[in-house]
Order: sequence, then structure tokens, then C-alpha cells
Amino acid sequence: MRCFKVTVEFDGTEFCGFQLQAGQRSVQGEIERAVQQITGQPVRVVGAGRTDAGVHAMGQVVGFRADTRIPIERMAAALNSALPRDVAAVRAVEVDPGFHARFSAVSRAYAYLILLRDSPSALFRRYAWHLPVPLDVGAMQEAARRLEGTRDFAAWAGASETVTTVRTVTRCRLRQHGPFLMVHVEANAFLKGMVRTIVGTLVQVGLGRRAPEEVDRITGSRDRSQAGPSAPAHGLCLVRVRYPRIGIQGGARSAGRSSQDRGATDEDL
Amino acid sequence: MRCFKVTVEFDGTEFCGFQLQAGQRSVQGEIERAVQQITGQPVRVVGAGRTDAGVHAMGQVVGFRADTRIPIERMAAALNSALPRDVAAVRAVEVDPGFHARFSAVSRAYAYLILLRDSPSALFRRYAWHLPVPLDVGAMQEAARRLEGTRDFAAWAGASETVTTVRTVTRCRLRQHGPFLMVHVEANAFLKGMVRTIVGTLVQVGLGRRAPEEVDRITGSRDRSQAGPSAPAHGLCLVRVRYPRIGIQGGARSAGRSSQDRGATDEDL
Repeated sequence: MRCFKVTVEFDGTEFCGFQLQAGQRSVQGEIERAVQQITGQPVRVVGAGRTDAGVHAMGQVVGFRADTRIPIERMAAALNSALPRDVAAVRAVEVDPGFHARFSAVSRAYAYLILLRDSPSALFRRYAWHLPVPLDVGAMQEAARRLEGTRDFAAWAGASETVTTVRTVTRCRLRQHGPFLMVHVEANAFLKGMVRTIVGTLVQVGLGRRAPEEVDRITGSRDRSQAGPSAPAHGLCLVRVRYPRIGIQGGARSAGRSSQDRGATDEDL
Repeated sequence: MRCFKVTVEFDGTEFCGFQLQAGQRSVQGEIERAVQQITGQPVRVVGAGRTDAGVHAMGQVVGFRADTRIPIERMAAALNSALPRDVAAVRAVEVDPGFHARFSAVSRAYAYLILLRDSPSALFRRYAWHLPVPLDVGAMQEAARRLEGTRDFAAWAGASETVTTVRTVTRCRLRQHGPFLMVHVEANAFLKGMVRTIVGTLVQVGLGRRAPEEVDRITGSRDRSQAGPSAPAHGLCLVRVRYPRIGIQGGARSAGRSSQDRGATDEDL
């Protein structure tokens, strides 16, 4: 059995989300179908992040095992020949058996795109949250900084069965490019709905409805109802997943972690 | 009768092109339908550039006349309430009766987006020409510069009934942003298919199949078969249309040109 790590880009518009759901079109389902088509074997595909319906990815990472003779340098092209146009395999590498796309990952980075102008956009309608109102970006930046660090993010996430709600946000920053405002958030892992709650709350700060300091009170409350509404899914994009070291077959050792170390895995978005 | 100039953005993917075509979905048709819906009158909408099927626009300009009391500051929002999501009115101003979206325009700027990487893109599949091959961008830049100036561009366009095939290209430049290569072309007006022929030929130069100097020979031939193949429509976007002065009602004079001066209007793309 060979083990593969594949970086995947997808347009989430026409998916029920990353994860398999009976009777619905999922990214995982399309990738499993494509792998089966090119290898002739039914496979289980594991994703680093379980993105919601409408959320996009430029750098989702998936892992799977298969018994195939496809040379590694042709794996991405083989997958692309079998994938629909709204999913693309960007890179494929072969990894040691200990690699797990979700549990081995040490950080995930998301970007959230907001379009600040009066009129909606025809070209970015699927990829940006349109807000026809001025925002106080300085106040948002101050609020964002208060989210950086290791905290219990229970107030920033929907209900879930995770072992712990403590996560380490290494970066929460805003950047403006013309009429676009991007929120970049990176963490070891995310709770369900966490980035969208953060963005929805930052926008309330930008509108002057909340002070930047309220972020600390929200975090301290551990109560989801204290945070703002969730920003819409279509502005969100999973940009990058990092691993401590990729154990490329015949090369470096694997980046697997033991199951005891699985407290802070990604629950996403 | 009031006269309106509206800047329009559209995603060309699901259109037969800008111009009305019987039984097909055109951008012009959607805008005429929206204007009629909000004003109660059948109108004729004129566009600055007649883009092909699949070509996008961030800055198409349209003009129309209507008898309506909609305040000008609410016109764009009123149009957006009636337009489909793949067309958006970005700005609306009121202009003098002499304004003509096509004949008054003094320049058009297009951008062509090429994605240079091995794998196709799920997110940019509608907006960029994917080329999984290395290109010699320096050679392309040299070829592009040879297209700047006032020339007979007959070799760079499909057959048409235009009075003259002389156009002035004020800018033909390339820019790289990560894996993206953008070709920016600006001219007083364009012949039918001109930008796509330029990009298709520049790519041949980038592939080393033609020398940059061949551009001059192609132009001199006035023979379309001498130039390269047409680049696909979906990488192309009409970015901006300039007018000498916008005659805003009650403000500056109109920017109309007489019919004798209509040699170099846009035929597009």
C-alpha cells in the first residue's frame, strides 16, 4: 500500500461541504470517486479540514492509501483527469504510512474575503462577502489582535464533541487591497464555525456596534451567544495546511502523531 | 428623456456575449430587461464594447435613455435589484443627450489572465487561461512592446465591416503576480477578436515558437493567417472604458462625437 498526500483546490459553491453526506455532492466524495477511477480500488480519503457548504479551498490537504503503479509525478495529473472542474489536485507527494492528513497537521490558515463597496460584484459573488457599508478597519484590527494566543475558544464555535476547546491562534490580521478587506486567521486547529464567528464579530466591531475590547469578554464567557453572527460561508477559503515534516517515501520520517495527541484537531468551519 | 451612463461588471461565463442575439442570453438583453422593469419602458441599451461569449467585464459602460423619476444616486441600486447575479451595475451617472457609450469612448482597456502552473485551478477556471508550460515572459514583453503605436491591425482581427483597421494601442504590457501572468492592452478601440489574437500570438512567442520580431512582419502582412491562434475567451476581461469628459446633466458639456468621426469605434472581442 502506498500513502499519498495531495494538496487540493476547490470551489465550494456547488458542494454540501468537504465531508461525505448521504445523497449530497461532497468534495470528499468526488475525490474518492476520482481515486477509485484511476486506481480501480475503493478508497477512504481523509481531509485536513472539514469545510462547510460554500467554503472554498486553495490548499486543502487530503491523504489516502492505494495500491497503484501510477508514478508520483503523474498522480496529480491522473487525479485531475478524473475530477470535476470545481476540484483540482495541485500537488501530490508520497508519504510514510504514519501520515494522517488531519491528525498530523500542525496548523491551518484561512482567508476571509470581504468586498466593501456600494454595488455587489458579478465576478466575486461566489468568493466575497459584499458589505455596502463603511467599516472601521482600525477597530477591527485591534479586535483581531485580541484573538491571537492560546485561549479557550468555546464562545467562538458551535456545539461539538471535541475533547478541548482550547486552540492557539497564531495570526489574526486584516489587510486591505482596494475595495477588498481580507481577514487572515491561522491556528493550530479550529473549532466548528470558528473563523466565520470571528469574522462576523469583527464586522460588528467595524460597524461600531461593539468595542474591540469586547472580544476578551466574549472569549471569557465561553458562551457562543455572546459572539456575533456567523459570516456567510462563501467568503471563506482554506489557504494552507502545515505539517511538521512530510515523510516522503524513502526520504524523511513521517509526520504522524499518536492518537493520544489528538486533542486539537481541526473541526472547521 | 434622461440619459444614463452606467458602469457594469459581468461574469461572461453564462452569456452568448454582450450583444443581443435571438433566443440566447445576452448581457445587453438582461440590462434592457432590468431597465424596463424599473422604469416601465422598453429601452435600447448601448455598450462601449461588444464582448464575445465567455468574456468578462469589470468596467463595461452602457448608455440608455429613459423617462423616469428614479434619483440618480439610487439608479445603480435599482438596476441591481432587477439584474441577475452575474451582472452588476457598479456606478450610474446622468449625462447629456450627446453621450454615446460606444462612439463617445476614447479608449478601452482589457486584461487577459493566464495561469502558469502544472495543475488546473478550480477557483479560477472561469477567469484564467491555464497553461501548464513555462513561458519566456521577457520575449513576450518584447513582442508586446512592438504592438504599441498606431498601426493597421488587420492581421490581428477577424473579418469585419469596419471602415478602417487602423487603431492606436497605447499600452501592451505583461505583469506577473505569483503564478498569474496578466496581459494589459489599452487602445483607442479594438477590432473584432484583436486582444485574443494578440494574447494567442504572445503565448507562441513565450513558447519559443516565434521570435518577438515576427510581430512586425505579422502586422505588415495585414493577413490574419500570419498571426497566432486566438486565446480562449474566458481569460479576457474588459477593465475600463474612458471618455473625454462626462457631460453630467447640468454640469460639463457632453462627450459626444459626430458620426463622421466614427472610424475607430470598438468592434471587440
